[in-house]
Amino acid sequence: MINVGIAGSTGYTGIELVHLLQRHPHAQIVWITSENSAGKPLSEVHAVPWNYTLITLEEAYGRATEVDVVFLCLPHGQSITAARTFAEAGLAVIDLSADFRLDSADAYRRWYGLEHTAPELLGCFVYGLCEVNRERLRGARLVAVPGCYPTTVNLGLYPLAKAGWLGERVIVDSKSGVSGAGRTAKLPYLFVEANENMTPYNIGYRHRHIAEMELVLNGVAPNGGCHFTFSPHLLPANRGILSTMYVRVPAGVTETQIRNLYAEAYAGEPFIHLLPAGQQATLRHTVYTNRCAISITADHPGDPACRDFIIVCTEDNLIKGASGQAIQCMNIAFGLDETAGLL
Amino acid sequence: MINVGIAGSTGYTGIELVHLLQRHPHAQIVWITSENSAGKPLSEVHAVPWNYTLITLEEAYGRATEVDVVFLCLPHGQSITAARTFAEAGLAVIDLSADFRLDSADAYRRWYGLEHTAPELLGCFVYGLCEVNRERLRGARLVAVPGCYPTTVNLGLYPLAKAGWLGERVIVDSKSGVSGAGRTAKLPYLFVEANENMTPYNIGYRHRHIAEMELVLNGVAPNGGCHFTFSPHLLPANRGILSTMYVRVPAGVTETQIRNLYAEAYAGEPFIHLLPAGQQATLRHTVYTNRCAISITADHPGDPACRDFIIVCTEDNLIKGASGQAIQCMNIAFGLDETAGLL
Amino acid sequence: MINVGIAGSTGYTGIELVHLLQRHPHAQIVWITSENSAGKPLSEVHAVPWNYTLITLEEAYGRATEVDVVFLCLPHGQSITAARTFAEAGLAVIDLSADFRLDSADAYRRWYGLEHTAPELLGCFVYGLCEVNRERLRGARLVAVPGCYPTTVNLGLYPLAKAGWLGERVIVDSKSGVSGAGRTAKLPYLFVEANENMTPYNIGYRHRHIAEMELVLNGVAPNGGCHFTFSPHLLPANRGILSTMYVRVPAGVTETQIRNLYAEAYAGEPFIHLLPAGQQATLRHTVYTNRCAISITADHPGDPACRDFIIVCTEDNLIKGASGQAIQCMNIAFGLDETAGLL
Amino acid sequence: MINVGIAGSTGYTGIELVHLLQRHPHAQIVWITSENSAGKPLSEVHAVPWNYTLITLEEAYGRATEVDVVFLCLPHGQSITAARTFAEAGLAVIDLSADFRLDSADAYRRWYGLEHTAPELLGCFVYGLCEVNRERLRGARLVAVPGCYPTTVNLGLYPLAKAGWLGERVIVDSKSGVSGAGRTAKLPYLFVEANENMTPYNIGYRHRHIAEMELVLNGVAPNGGCHFTFSPHLLPANRGILSTMYVRVPAGVTETQIRNLYAEAYAGEPFIHLLPAGQQATLRHTVYTNRCAISITADHPGDPACRDFIIVCTEDNLIKGASGQAIQCMNIAFGLDETAGLL
Repeated sequence: MINVGIAGSTGYTGIELVHLLQRHPHAQIVWITSENSAGKPLSEVHAVPWNYTLITLEEAYGRATEVDVVFLCLPHGQSITAARTFAEAGLAVIDLSADFRLDSADAYRRWYGLEHTAPELLGCFVYGLCEVNRERLRGARLVAVPGCYPTTVNLGLYPLAKAGWLGERVIVDSKSGVSGAGRTAKLPYLFVEANENMTPYNIGYRHRHIAEMELVLNGVAPNGGCHFTFSPHLLPANRGILSTMYVRVPAGVTETQIRNLYAEAYAGEPFIHLLPAGQQATLRHTVYTNRCAISITADHPGDPACRDFIIVCTEDNLIKGASGQAIQCMNIAFGLDETAGLL
Repeated sequence: MINVGIAGSTGYTGIELVHLLQRHPHAQIVWITSENSAGKPLSEVHAVPWNYTLITLEEAYGRATEVDVVFLCLPHGQSITAARTFAEAGLAVIDLSADFRLDSADAYRRWYGLEHTAPELLGCFVYGLCEVNRERLRGARLVAVPGCYPTTVNLGLYPLAKAGWLGERVIVDSKSGVSGAGRTAKLPYLFVEANENMTPYNIGYRHRHIAEMELVLNGVAPNGGCHFTFSPHLLPANRGILSTMYVRVPAGVTETQIRNLYAEAYAGEPFIHLLPAGQQATLRHTVYTNRCAISITADHPGDPACRDFIIVCTEDNLIKGASGQAIQCMNIAFGLDETAGLL
Repeated sequence: MINVGIAGSTGYTGIELVHLLQRHPHAQIVWITSENSAGKPLSEVHAVPWNYTLITLEEAYGRATEVDVVFLCLPHGQSITAARTFAEAGLAVIDLSADFRLDSADAYRRWYGLEHTAPELLGCFVYGLCEVNRERLRGARLVAVPGCYPTTVNLGLYPLAKAGWLGERVIVDSKSGVSGAGRTAKLPYLFVEANENMTPYNIGYRHRHIAEMELVLNGVAPNGGCHFTFSPHLLPANRGILSTMYVRVPAGVTETQIRNLYAEAYAGEPFIHLLPAGQQATLRHTVYTNRCAISITADHPGDPACRDFIIVCTEDNLIKGASGQAIQCMNIAFGLDETAGLL
Repeated sequence: MINVGIAGSTGYTGIELVHLLQRHPHAQIVWITSENSAGKPLSEVHAVPWNYTLITLEEAYGRATEVDVVFLCLPHGQSITAARTFAEAGLAVIDLSADFRLDSADAYRRWYGLEHTAPELLGCFVYGLCEVNRERLRGARLVAVPGCYPTTVNLGLYPLAKAGWLGERVIVDSKSGVSGAGRTAKLPYLFVEANENMTPYNIGYRHRHIAEMELVLNGVAPNGGCHFTFSPHLLPANRGILSTMYVRVPAGVTETQIRNLYAEAYAGEPFIHLLPAGQQATLRHTVYTNRCAISITADHPGDPACRDFIIVCTEDNLIKGASGQAIQCMNIAFGLDETAGLL
C-alpha cells in the first residue's frame, strides 16, 4: 500500500485526486493540506462525506515521513519550494503545476513571467505524458504532470510529429469546460456569465501551454519546428477539453497511412480510444474517464490527394488532463498496474 | 419622452433595465452610474455595444435635474440615501432594492438586520406590485419594486388570500435561476459549482422575502395570518423563478370556483398568463418576458372534496421580478400605456 | 467471479450498469442485449470504447447458462417474461423495471394500467431497498430494484415512518435531472426544451412512484397511512434527484430527537451521508456516487415547539436510484462486500 | 401596417419570428400555418400565451389575399411550391429555407441532393444578407434569407474578401447552440446527450452551408476562389453561433489596415458590433439580439509582419442567423426603418 500526501486539496484537481485515490486498490491518502481551510474537515470545503481533516503545508513538511509520495496541487510558482522540501525529505513528488514542466529557467521566465528558484531541479523531473515517456517514468521520483490543453494536443499529434508529418503550422482550436479555469471566484467564471455563452481567450500564439506543445512535438519532429496557433475557448460545461487540430501532411501521405500510423503508435494503450473512420471524438467519450479519444478526418471527402487533415482529440481535463494522469504516472513510477484505480 | 437615470448599472437588474429601456418608445436613458466602473463605457462591464459612459452616484446627484425619474439598482441599505437625495431634488424614484418595501423600521430591522435611516419615507413609497396596487401607483412619485420571489408568491396566491381561502399555512417551494444571487464573484455561484447541481438554502421560515408575502397576502386576508414555509433552491439556469405552492382551501371550495376566482381577478391583465386545466406553468412560459404564468392543480385527481391545491407560478426574475416590473410601475405612474416597452 | 448478463443496455440505466460493472472486482459482464441494435458493438450506441457486441433477448435466453445473474433494464411491462424465463433457467434476476416492485396485481393494474402476467412471482421478489431490506436480500434470487424517486423519499423518511412520527400527510417536492425520463427521443426532453427551463409534471397524488412510498413507509408505520402529495419537476441537469419533503411530527418531538433517530437508523451505512445541522444536502453530494445525502431542518428557526420539519434527500438517479443500487443488491445477495465496485 | 403570414410556425425559427413580429411597430401577423398542429392554438405547441389558431398551408393559400408578405419557415425542399404559389398570388415572399439561396439548380443538386422544381425562380430571389445586399433588397419581392452559419462567416470575412485579402484558404471552426439543429426529436439533440458534451460534425469540406460562403465571398473576391475548411461543432447552449476563422492576408497588410477596413465597411451599420483591439466577440454580445459581433486578432502578438489573423464572429442563430435577419429584409424591402422591431 502506497501512502499518499496531497498538498493543496481545495481546487478542482485536488478534490478529483481525492476522489480517484479513494478507489485506488494500492494507495491510500494519509494527509491533505489546505492553506485557507486548515483545521477544517474536507467536507466543509467540498460536497464530500470524507472526514479528512485538512492540515497546513507547514504541518505536511513535518509529516513527510508518513508518506511515500506527495502530489502537489498548488498554484504555479508555489510548487517549487514544496517540491524541493519533499524531495529532500526523500519523497517521490508528482507535481500537477507547471513549475517543472519546461526544460529551462529561460523558458519558464518567458512563458510564466517568473524567475525559477530551483532551476537545478528542472532537469530532474520527468514530463509525465505517460504514453510518450513511459520508459522514463519507470522508477521516476520526480514527475511533472502535463497541462490539460497540451495533453490533448500532444497525444493528438504525437504520431504525426514523430513521423515528420506535422508540417510547418498547426492550428489548434480548443474548447474547455469551466473547471479548467480553477476554483477561484472571478466574474467570468460565474454561472450566469459562462452559461449560454462561449468566450475565446488568449487566442493565437499567446497561451503558455504552447510551450509544452513545442517541447514535446517539436522535440520529437525530425524536420524542425512547427508553429502552433492555439485558440482556447471557454465552453459552458463543467469538464472536458475538445481540441480541433488542422494539419497539412506532406504530399503523398494518405489517410490510410495516417490511420495506420496512429493505430500502431497507440496499439495496446489502455487510455487511448481511436475512433473508426466516420466517427468523431466527443467530450462524452472521455469525461469522467482517464481516456483520450482521437478521430481523424480528411478535409476534402472526395480527394485522395488531400493533404489537409483534421484531428480531434478530447479528454476530461481534470482526469487525463490532470489528476488521472498524475495517478497513471504514480502507477508507472511505482511499478503498479498502470490502470490501477483508473478504470 | 421621459428622461431616465439609472443608479447602479453593473448588476444583472441594472443591465436588464438598460436593455428594456433601449426599446421603450417613451423613455430614454440620460445617465447611468457605477461606483466601481465610473469613467468607463458600459461596454467594458457588460457584453453590450452601447457607449454610455458610467458616472458616479455623486455626479448623478449633480445631474438630477436632467432626468424625470431615477431607477435605483443599488444594494440593500444603500438605496436609502440615494432615494432621499433624488426625492428632495424633485425626481420620481423607483427603487429596486428592499429598502422601502416594508412598512416599518421595525420590520426592516427584523428581516434585514439594519437600522433604517429614513423611516419617515417608508410610508411614502407605494409597493409596486402592479396587478394589486395599480390604482395607488397612478401618479406615484416613490415606488418600491417588489422582490423577485415575493412577486411569484403574491401574484400566485393573491386571489386566494383576498377571498379568505388561503388557509393557515402555505408551503412555498421555490426554484430560482442563479442570476437571482446577483453579479458577485462568490464560490457557490461559480459555473462549476452551480451547474449540474441544485442547492436548497434558507429553507423554512428564514428568508427575508417572507416579509413581503406576509405584508401583501396577510394584509388582504379577511381572516388573519397565514404562516409561510418558504424554501428557495438554487437552480442551474440563468433566469427564472418557479414557485410550487401547496395550499389548503376551506371545505366546500371547488376547483372550478378557484379557477373562476383567478380568471376574474386577472381578467384583462396583460402580464398574467393563466394556464388551462391540465397544463403546468413552466419557466419557458415567462423567461425573457414581463409575464407571470400561473397553473392550478387539485392534489387528488379523482376527489371532488379535495381541499388541497397546488399553485405553480413562474416569472423571469430579472424582468417581472425586477426591472420589467419597475418599468411597468413607471408606465403606470407616468400615465403611459402600461405595456409600453414590455411586449 | 460472478458472470453477469444485462438485458437492455441502450438506455441510461443500462449503460450506467455497464460502466459500474467494468470496475467491479468480483463481477464480469458476459453478454448484453439490445433489441434495436443487436449485432452492433455497444460503442455504436453509446460513446464508449468497449467492444461488446450486442445480442437479442432471444439469444440471451439461449445463453442463460453462461451467467449467474441477469440485470433487466427493460421497459415496464417487458420485464415480466424475461424475468420468468431467466428465473426458470435458474439465474438470479435483478429487475430494474417496476414490474415486480408492487405487492399485488391489483396495485400494478391501478398504478401502471397493465394486467400483470406473472402475479404468482410478485411475492417472490425482494424489494431491493438495501438499507431497509438488507436481511431479506441476503441470498435472494429475485430482486426488484426500487424506483429512482421512491429511493430518495423512502430513505429520507424511513426513520420517521418507523418511529410513527411521519404524520398524516407529507408533501414531497422533487426535482429530477433529465436522464430520469429515459433515452427516448421525445420533444420535451430535447436540449433546447429542457435547458434554461423547469417543468412540473404529474404533480399531486398522480405519479405511479407514490405506490412505492406507500408500500415502504405506510408498510412500516405503526399508526396507519400517510397521504403523499408528490410533485416531480424536470430539472435542467443530466443527473440527480433532490426531494424536499415537508413533514409534521407529533407534538413534543424535538429536532435533537429526530437527528438522533436518523443517526441511529443509519449508523455504519456506507451509502448514507447525514449532513450536520446547518448544512443542506445538494445534488453535488451524490451525483456520480451510490450515496444518498440527507439533511434535516426545522421549519421555524427560533421555536423549540416547532413540529414542522423539512427533510432534503438527494441521490444520483442512475446510480443509487437505479444501477448502483442494483449492484448493491447483487453484492448483498451474493454475499460480497456490499460496497464492492461502488466506491 | 404590413399584414404578415407565417408558413411553418412550430420550429424554432417560426416561433422566434412570431416573438419578434409581436413587437414590430409596423407589421402584424394575420395567419400562421402548421401542418401537424392545424386547428390547435399556437399555445399548445409552444409555451406562449397568444391564441393564434394554426391553419394548414392549404388554407393559407386560400387566404393569401389577406396578407402582404409571407415568411416561409418550411423545411428545405418544401419551400419551393409554397414560394411559387404565394409569388403567383402577388405576395412578397421571404424564404428562410435554403431553397432559393443558391444561384443554380446544379449547385442546389450538388449540395442538397434534390432536384430543384422551380429553377426559373432561382435568379429572382435576392440573397438577403442585408449589410452586403442592401441596395438589391430595396423593393425586393422575393428574398432568400441566408443560413445561420454563413451569416457569421460572410459578415465576418466580407471586408477581407472584397479587398482581395482573404487568401487561398480559410479555416472556419464554428460552434453552434443546439437550436440550430431544429425542433426535431432526435437522439443526439436530447438534453442528456448534448449537455456536458461537445460534438464535431460534418467537419472539413462537407457541410452544405459552404455553398453560401463560396457564393458570397468568392463572388466578390477580385482574385479568385478561396477554399473553405468549415468545421461545425454542437455546443451545449440553446442559442448562438461563434465562428473562429483563421485567415492569411497578403504580405504587407497590417493589423491597423485590417481594422480600418472593417471600420469603414461597417460604419453606421446598426447590427454590426466591432470589438476594439484586445476584446473578443462572445456569444453574450449577440444572443437575443439581431447583431453580429466581430473581433480581430493577430496570430503572433509581437510580430508586425504577422500575416495570420483570427477573426471571431458571433450571432444569435435564430435572430440574426434567421428570423431577425428575415425581418430586417422585410424592413428594407418595404422601405421601413431597417431596425424596426429589431432593437
